[in-house]
Amino acid sequence: MKLNIALLAGDGIGPEVIDQAVKVCDAIAKKYEHHITWKPALTGAAAIDAVGEPYPDETHEICANADAVLFGAIGHPRFDNDPSAKVRPEQGLLKMRQKLGLFANVRPTFTFPSLIDKSPLKRDRIEGTDLIILRELTGGIYFGERGRKDDGNTAFDTMTYQRFEIERLAKKGFEFAMKRSKKLCCVDKANVLESSRLWRETVQAMEKDYPEVEVSYEFIDAVAMRLIQWPKGYDVIITANLFGDILTDEASVIAGSMGLMPSSSVGSKVSLYEPIHGSYPQAAGKDIANPLATVLSAAMLFEDMNMTQEAGEIRRVVNKSLAEGYVTEDLADGGKSYKTSEVGDWLASNI
Amino acid sequence: MKLNIALLAGDGIGPEVIDQAVKVCDAIAKKYEHHITWKPALTGAAAIDAVGEPYPDETHEICANADAVLFGAIGHPRFDNDPSAKVRPEQGLLKMRQKLGLFANVRPTFTFPSLIDKSPLKRDRIEGTDLIILRELTGGIYFGERGRKDDGNTAFDTMTYQRFEIERLAKKGFEFAMKRSKKLCCVDKANVLESSRLWRETVQAMEKDYPEVEVSYEFIDAVAMRLIQWPKGYDVIITANLFGDILTDEASVIAGSMGLMPSSSVGSKVSLYEPIHGSYPQAAGKDIANPLATVLSAAMLFEDMNMTQEAGEIRRVVNKSLAEGYVTEDLADGGKSYKTSEVGDWLASNI
Ligand SMILES: CC(C)[C@H](C(=O)O)[C@@H](O)C(=O)O
Ligand SMILES: CC(C)[C@H](C(=O)O)[C@@H](O)C(=O)O
Repeated sequence: MKLNIALLAGDGIGPEVIDQAVKVCDAIAKKYEHHITWKPALTGAAAIDAVGEPYPDETHEICANADAVLFGAIGHPRFDNDPSAKVRPEQGLLKMRQKLGLFANVRPTFTFPSLIDKSPLKRDRIEGTDLIILRELTGGIYFGERGRKDDGNTAFDTMTYQRFEIERLAKKGFEFAMKRSKKLCCVDKANVLESSRLWRETVQAMEKDYPEVEVSYEFIDAVAMRLIQWPKGYDVIITANLFGDILTDEASVIAGSMGLMPSSSVGSKVSLYEPIHGSYPQAAGKDIANPLATVLSAAMLFEDMNMTQEAGEIRRVVNKSLAEGYVTEDLADGGKSYKTSEVGDWLASNI
Repeated sequence: MKLNIALLAGDGIGPEVIDQAVKVCDAIAKKYEHHITWKPALTGAAAIDAVGEPYPDETHEICANADAVLFGAIGHPRFDNDPSAKVRPEQGLLKMRQKLGLFANVRPTFTFPSLIDKSPLKRDRIEGTDLIILRELTGGIYFGERGRKDDGNTAFDTMTYQRFEIERLAKKGFEFAMKRSKKLCCVDKANVLESSRLWRETVQAMEKDYPEVEVSYEFIDAVAMRLIQWPKGYDVIITANLFGDILTDEASVIAGSMGLMPSSSVGSKVSLYEPIHGSYPQAAGKDIANPLATVLSAAMLFEDMNMTQEAGEIRRVVNKSLAEGYVTEDLADGGKSYKTSEVGDWLASNI
């Protein structure tokens, strides 16, 4: 098969972890006789420095015409504490999600047998956790009107949802639930927010189309608690953009390491694959970042292309590296550790 | 001393847990020669049933003229899944917060030596946790304009903050920090929200007035993760209404039981004291709910009235009940347990 993959390395550790995923994908391509053409493109702070904006049109062209996008991370601390910065790396991410129509972020949460004791949570609470959070990604308070009034002394942001935005996200949720344990949980704040009441109303109206799926409705504050108390109580969660941002990061503690969790963002056209961790600027350039989340994101890419064997092979080799301790320092527990690039080489050579 | 305390039992288990706090306070009053006049008033679903609204004017009068308010819980499931309900118990809570000017919710998070192993988190991660979350309580998306458009197919909520709202909350945060370890963390989503950028800007401008306080700024998604990974990394957290709603409930898992965590809501006038747990309707009327969070909320009440000895006495007797296993079934680990009312009697008789 021929694959065109847009390669958006981004900022911080992005380029380093992306490099390892490329090595692994190339090894897969060689073994299974595919041909991958990588199309590198600029994004984030790197793009601001080069061309003055974080998601240039040229990058969009490359992504829109690719079969998939592999993404590293974006963000740079020099923008974070400067409330007056006019252009920010994150704007690139948001523009990209919107222009590519990536309305659903899919984040699986699961545990790795060899890493379970690294979690801050007790083994019996998390062992066997297998849940998916579907976060709405192109609506809500991320994209509503915002601004200042009263000489800058009042600031506002608007959380807006339209019924069709909720429907298309919920549809994916019901579909996932049908393929899994047929349990769907809609997370909102319907006791306060009108937009949450529209969520509830919309999902309730869809229940009749999926009579086998058992749907529950829970408040975000309660879920922030229960997700830690008993993650096995959840299977498929659907939620709004902001709530999903918070819950998906929170859920990452279950696995014990952010360095391992992959994600995909899907919509109508091309899909995007990225590790859930950020640009981790303190580690940038040091060849110490854990590349596994990006490598596992590539596995999700192959899976979605119906290349199940290829995806399985990547997961197998990742598990092997974990089992044999061929890992970066974050997973080494003070024992022997390997460089980012060494882990990438090892994974590729074991395919 | 003479104290007038408004008593808002509310819904679900509210009346039962409030009864025990009253017993304990009356025992304190007897021992320390105070005179407490209790002023019961209606709120929540109970008030809707009785007079058609969840925070009647008469209740407000009683609260506004009291020295303090002791509050149980409100909420009833018959309203939760009915997006079209016109009057909701929660509206009473919001109206009360606003009309009483309770702009800061103070939630301490700590561990109990005798309960530490009940937490889903590992002992070494949480032992010694001692943090305070200060949640803004009368602004933000809870009180902004909301509504529907396009024949009900679009819903919106507005998150609005004015500089003075942030300043008065942050001032309390700085003051708490000065009395503690001089570390303050402002939690927001300034990489996306304009209102968060106003938070950051406002708090940054206040830093010079508290040169000894070390201030950090973190994103809500990262904190949702780090609060579980390493709660000891935080001391005083200040945050907006919605973020605080989520973080405070999440933080409650650290202690291992919601049934133990007290809170206060303070502002310019009267203060309110309440357990952080909800109305827990499944347990209502069964005499099984844990009254300790409400009893410890009463301790916060005495503390704020500078009745330190009285507050200490309540905490001592609560710790004694935990150590001796004189607890409700949620804390009994399958061992012998006691009724809500029995725990209240025991606490009162040990004062
Ligand atoms: C960088 C930031 C704008 C972004 C978000 O909030 O969506 C990030 O936290 C994420 O989850 O991808
Ligand atoms: C009942 C609800 C409106 C309320 C809130 O969100 O403020 C509750 O969750 C709380 O934290 O007191």
